Amino acid sequence: MGYALLDLTTDPPRLLAHGLVETPRLGSAAEKLLAIADAIDALIAAHEPAFFALERLYFNKNVRTAMAVAEARGVALVCGARAGLAIAEYTPQEVKQSVTGSGGADKRAIQRMIVHILELPEPVTQDNVADAIAIALTHAQRVKFTAAVASAK
Amino acid sequence: MGYALLDLTTDPPRLLAHGLVETPRLGSAAEKLLAIADAIDALIAAHEPAFFALERLYFNKNVRTAMAVAEARGVALVCGARAGLAIAEYTPQEVKQSVTGSGGADKRAIQRMIVHILELPEPVTQDNVADAIAIALTHAQRVKFTAAVASAK
Repeated sequence: MGYALLDLTTDPPRLLAHGLVETPRLGSAAEKLLAIADAIDALIAAHEPAFFALERLYFNKNVRTAMAVAEARGVALVCGARAGLAIAEYTPQEVKQSVTGSGGADKRAIQRMIVHILELPEPVTQDNVADAIAIALTHAQRVKFTAAVASAK
Repeated sequence: MGYALLDLTTDPPRLLAHGLVETPRLGSAAEKLLAIADAIDALIAAHEPAFFALERLYFNKNVRTAMAVAEARGVALVCGARAGLAIAEYTPQEVKQSVTGSGGADKRAIQRMIVHILELPEPVTQDNVADAIAIALTHAQRVKFTAAVASAK
């Protein structure tokens, strides 16, 4: 599971942390899920974010994969809710639209735009991490848009 | 989500607690999952069980329902793992086989056998609660069988 933390007080937002949550490769489902919960709890404690955005459940063609993703999503949602964070969810299409301007963008296009928008020193090559950054960026753009609409009233 | 706690030191096992975890009907998915996590944590803290058994994921025909069940399962697994409990999972068929002797038993047969085996003063009419009791009873029978095999060696 990829993660990314953005500082929205700068323009462009600053990428504070990103990476993959490590899970015990040979562990049981419960041990893997606990590792995810502990990692998310630790990230929230360390960075004290105000928002918590994640991918809205997509229906994977592989049922077993879809179930494992749903289990991890449930765990992540509880971590966010328990910390009192405002939770947002975006479909892959919403993320592509927000980051690249096209809902049909491919992974390479998203990776290029992340580097461009956030002025990163090097590309992010792991798909799950790039996805996490794109989701955080999507929420950053939503927050900025909402604030702009509110101040224009 | 139904739950049941059995005391395995008596014969038959004594039903210590059973019921449905209440979730806010109008809450978000995250709020509902947090209510489930808090309820399971409270039950574990109150009863300090040694084992934690739950239904192995079945593939519901309704994909949306299956995803919601998987999210709740992930949350429950983390509660059990975080408390250091031994976790067991049983398919609906294993539960039916164990409780009634037939993997094709219907819900009425399971409810009758629960009342009979556990010598309950009244029937359990809610399906999710009856299922939870049946899962706990399945694990109780497994624990007793394992202990019997070990002592016969």
